[in-house]
Amino acid sequence: MGHLIDRRWMGAALALADRGVGRTAPNPNVGCVLVRDDRVVGRGWTQVGGRPHAEAMALAEAGEAARGATAYVTLEPCAHVSTRGPACTDLLIAHRVARIVAAMGDPDPRTDGAGFARARAAGIMVTTGVREAEARAMIAGFLTRRAKGRPFVTLKLATSLDGKIARPDGESRWITGPEARAHTHLERSRHEAILVGRGTLEADSPTLDVRLPGLESHSPRRILLSRTPEAGWETIHSPAAIADLAGVDRLMVEGGAQTASAFLAGDRVDRLLLYRAPILIGQGRAALGDIGLSRLAEAHGRWRLADSRMLGSDRLEVYERD
Amino acid sequence: MGHLIDRRWMGAALALADRGVGRTAPNPNVGCVLVRDDRVVGRGWTQVGGRPHAEAMALAEAGEAARGATAYVTLEPCAHVSTRGPACTDLLIAHRVARIVAAMGDPDPRTDGAGFARARAAGIMVTTGVREAEARAMIAGFLTRRAKGRPFVTLKLATSLDGKIARPDGESRWITGPEARAHTHLERSRHEAILVGRGTLEADSPTLDVRLPGLESHSPRRILLSRTPEAGWETIHSPAAIADLAGVDRLMVEGGAQTASAFLAGDRVDRLLLYRAPILIGQGRAALGDIGLSRLAEAHGRWRLADSRMLGSDRLEVYERD
Repeated sequence: MGHLIDRRWMGAALALADRGVGRTAPNPNVGCVLVRDDRVVGRGWTQVGGRPHAEAMALAEAGEAARGATAYVTLEPCAHVSTRGPACTDLLIAHRVARIVAAMGDPDPRTDGAGFARARAAGIMVTTGVREAEARAMIAGFLTRRAKGRPFVTLKLATSLDGKIARPDGESRWITGPEARAHTHLERSRHEAILVGRGTLEADSPTLDVRLPGLESHSPRRILLSRTPEAGWETIHSPAAIADLAGVDRLMVEGGAQTASAFLAGDRVDRLLLYRAPILIGQGRAALGDIGLSRLAEAHGRWRLADSRMLGSDRLEVYERD
Repeated sequence: MGHLIDRRWMGAALALADRGVGRTAPNPNVGCVLVRDDRVVGRGWTQVGGRPHAEAMALAEAGEAARGATAYVTLEPCAHVSTRGPACTDLLIAHRVARIVAAMGDPDPRTDGAGFARARAAGIMVTTGVREAEARAMIAGFLTRRAKGRPFVTLKLATSLDGKIARPDGESRWITGPEARAHTHLERSRHEAILVGRGTLEADSPTLDVRLPGLESHSPRRILLSRTPEAGWETIHSPAAIADLAGVDRLMVEGGAQTASAFLAGDRVDRLLLYRAPILIGQGRAALGDIGLSRLAEAHGRWRLADSRMLGSDRLEVYERD
């Protein structure tokens, strides 16, 4: 589990990695802290679009001060030279860091242990596995893209206590309150793209932008699930087509019921964001339609509660696919 | 708010009052602790069906030791003589208690301050208003019966995350797990009667008993909401008819959707017990049908979260009518 001090500095590296969530595809969002004599001499995180890498940024900041430092990285430093930049392992060796503490190895076959091996061969001490679970969760987009060949998918639902997303006439503004809606905007900023179906497009004309001070520039790409194209929107014809969305490792699905159900029926949802208002609607539009369930027993054991909090008078629950 | 020591002893009286919840109609469930020299000399709580009263029971236990004691009572001692027993105020005077600490006054017009006044006239010190909010919640059944002329109604719903209570073919066993179902049985034991609609009767043949060790004898009366009578069931024809259920101050409504909706549409639900399993059902039977809502804005501000806890992997949320 790693030494206590290592765990603490890794926390700082994880916080930096978090800055890149939903903005670094096709690269993983990595964080790096360089520490010498118990002081931070460099900090870096993967920049928008994947470059520069976290280590390159931190080393550039540290300069000569990196010599003899410990590099805390949330992912194994890359071992391959790219047209977009040198291998981070080589940079760390060149800067003569004394030690590398990594949260996890890089599953990319071009690295996959080669970063650690080359660093060790150069006389750098290497420790790995420090706060690995958190580091894995941090790059869920990158890992899902590698493991399943598609983006990590978050499905957002905003419902009443009885699971309705609108009244029978379609009235849906507002079910949740301003705090919950602001949180949705924050979540949008953590995804490379947002997807809605044609029903939602026509009923709500959603802008799907991030309306939070300072985060306006983080508005993600807008994808439409539809048989027919629409001006101003990228269109895909089926949930399976998300595999082809280049530069999208984290996708947020925002509605409506038919779209949500199609993603669930295909087992293409990794995370549920469930915003629930303390109201009852009764007759109205259900959050979900047919999700392909044939027995109740099949429904169990799929979702694990990962987080729960109040947002104003609404409750947010986050479930992850088990 | 009362002295700290008074508040603590009132806590003991409230815990005793809790033993009678759902079992003392038409009387309120009261608790009484007699304390002398910092020691408990008598304890009492309203017995099944309303008699003996808490004070009578505590005084009988204390006997001579009640002299000079402080009586902690969750409700003003009654001032009226009944064919079912003497006035508790007179009993307290006769036993020469030195002080009465009450959580609240008794709204019954036969008492309504007369208990306190007669005790003071007899030289007993009286303090009131200690933990009043808790005491009021404790006798919600009694107070609702007085204020609204009907029982306090708890509506229980057990749903999936998307608000479904069954699959399209009616399969509903099980949505929630054993901990949540055991909790429902505990809640049953705290109501004088349970009501279901004919649909639930025919689909599930519910026994509605309390299957918890030691509480089997607490099984409540079974009421059926139906146009036609049914052997073994008390039948009422409409939600409004709960007003006529003698001896029922707390009623639990257990289903199904049509019954729940009828109670909600008539604003006859005071408390929601919402058990939610971490599953998605999609197409299926909604927890509620038409509850008479004509605009979304009307749905807001009606329900206040009173409690929330995990029961195994399910979550219980308790909402109270605001």
